[in-house]
Amino acid sequence: MQLEETINAIQLLDEAAMQAARRCQDTLTKPRGSLGRLEELSIQLAGMKADTFPAVERKAVIVMAADHGVAREGVSAYPPEVTAQMVLNFLRGGAAINVLAKQAGARVTIVDIGVAVEFDPLPGLIRRKVMCGTRNQAEGPAMTRAEAQQALQVGVEVLNEEAQRGLDIVATGDMGIGNTTPSSAIAAALTGLPVAQVVGRGTGIDDQSLERKIKVIERSLAVNRPDPNDALDVLHKVGGLEIAGLAGVMIAAASQRIPVVVDGFISTAAAMIAAGLAPRARDYLIAAHQSVEIGHQAMLRHLNLAPLLDLNLRLGEGTGAALAFHLIEASTRILREMATFDEAGVSDKE
Amino acid sequence: MQLEETINAIQLLDEAAMQAARRCQDTLTKPRGSLGRLEELSIQLAGMKADTFPAVERKAVIVMAADHGVAREGVSAYPPEVTAQMVLNFLRGGAAINVLAKQAGARVTIVDIGVAVEFDPLPGLIRRKVMCGTRNQAEGPAMTRAEAQQALQVGVEVLNEEAQRGLDIVATGDMGIGNTTPSSAIAAALTGLPVAQVVGRGTGIDDQSLERKIKVIERSLAVNRPDPNDALDVLHKVGGLEIAGLAGVMIAAASQRIPVVVDGFISTAAAMIAAGLAPRARDYLIAAHQSVEIGHQAMLRHLNLAPLLDLNLRLGEGTGAALAFHLIEASTRILREMATFDEAGVSDKE
Repeated sequence: MQLEETINAIQLLDEAAMQAARRCQDTLTKPRGSLGRLEELSIQLAGMKADTFPAVERKAVIVMAADHGVAREGVSAYPPEVTAQMVLNFLRGGAAINVLAKQAGARVTIVDIGVAVEFDPLPGLIRRKVMCGTRNQAEGPAMTRAEAQQALQVGVEVLNEEAQRGLDIVATGDMGIGNTTPSSAIAAALTGLPVAQVVGRGTGIDDQSLERKIKVIERSLAVNRPDPNDALDVLHKVGGLEIAGLAGVMIAAASQRIPVVVDGFISTAAAMIAAGLAPRARDYLIAAHQSVEIGHQAMLRHLNLAPLLDLNLRLGEGTGAALAFHLIEASTRILREMATFDEAGVSDKE
Repeated sequence: MQLEETINAIQLLDEAAMQAARRCQDTLTKPRGSLGRLEELSIQLAGMKADTFPAVERKAVIVMAADHGVAREGVSAYPPEVTAQMVLNFLRGGAAINVLAKQAGARVTIVDIGVAVEFDPLPGLIRRKVMCGTRNQAEGPAMTRAEAQQALQVGVEVLNEEAQRGLDIVATGDMGIGNTTPSSAIAAALTGLPVAQVVGRGTGIDDQSLERKIKVIERSLAVNRPDPNDALDVLHKVGGLEIAGLAGVMIAAASQRIPVVVDGFISTAAAMIAAGLAPRARDYLIAAHQSVEIGHQAMLRHLNLAPLLDLNLRLGEGTGAALAFHLIEASTRILREMATFDEAGVSDKE
């Protein structure tokens, strides 16, 4: 199985490159450690890329789109047809992720991995539909185990194709009306926290819908009984196609030493699945931001990741990750472009 | 007095432009409010610039450099000659602010407002020295009232010159060995908090030096008795020349509806002085980041400003502000470039 090979190909971070990057940071004309997270980031990137001076110039945001059978339970503020409508909006460049990726100098790759609508061939759309949306997880498994594996495989292949186009760093994005519901279900299943502690308002539902959403997820977990020690079991029973695809992207990126910028709530659910299937993949993940979704903090803690930004975002699409590119690139530019104390003739600490 | 005219020229935020920007945000293809701080920022910028679609393309970081008589009390980890050495490093492009401003597409303007060393004319150096560093504030006023006014005036003039070159937004930066000491003194004087609660380790002093630094500031406040209701009194007695210059920059920028991105601890001390002298100037300030310096949080609270970033930075020079430019520009691009629900044919919330 290709996924297993990919998982086995993931290497540990390169300690020698990290040490060299740390030594370099300490020679630059600034008090040691004074650039805080940027210094740490540059050292992590050196370890990921096995390169003392890592480059993160060629950037892509991979947005996976899919529908969710559970949406018919009334868990979202938007109608399900918005998934397909937003795919068209992405392709025309009108969505938030288009604007923010353009600013960051990143390309946007849109993948239909499970939208309910059949699209005609469209310029820019990667058509890798596994099925026309998941089944209703409140009534049984969202996917079969084989379907979830197929969606993971799509993610691996999409990342590999992107890597062939030239890729230094990748960000993950999602589109799927209803997808905070499977993400919350994954969070509850893998952290063991009560459902109410990991469910938020998604695109903006009212109190009544929030109550319903919590009950739907509780029902889904009761009906499916996902095994927290088997990430694939969790994924196929209470996950989603775009979540599976993004987990595949993360695993494949890690196997190629390509850092992954994880967006918000949905992407972090995918990261939990990826880390469950391939624990070493976690080292290649950078958490872009702290989402408004209440479960997100617990998920990041579970992964032991600290978010770079906290801007009250709750949009998805990879928007937080696209914003974080700038900080990540800044960290590498500092390492490469600053003068040392010696070069600049600046006196060091007494 | 020109400063007073400048203060009187500061207008309130433009409510009509803010309302129009808010209405526009609500038509864009995303759940309302889902871009959190970015949406709020775009609306604030619209109010500052009196423009529904504010542009923040032409950017400058103004770095004011000066020395501090109080440095001879052993309050810094670095020797005082580093101030002048870093000015030369800025001019050669080797410092962190050069790297981060370049990435942000911002020019860097270096001003000698009070470095102890006399510089020859150097390309790029704006020579506006008020005096060769302040006097030792632990023994008496750091400056006379007239010297502080002169330094404020330098800030006003430097901003006006920058505005003539074309300027949509400005960031403030500082260089001055010892300058967390006057900044902490300003923070203690204006917030009323005990000195120990607003003094940190600056460039990285040890426990013993921290004890000494606290005592030096306590002595400075006891000797000078700055009047918290008179910002100019606080500034000249326990401030610094670069802090005065940056306060002048902020006031002049506000008078021209140019948003000011306030860097970290030193710039925020300048912002407290600016807001003390010109309360309306506060509305034109954007707090770039939460510094490691423990007093910074109380200062931002005093100003009622919420930082955009929290990256454990403690470098100064305007580095945090340069990083924040990207988020600020993102907020305006969202407003201008995203498609509306109507344009994109996307169904709105049910």
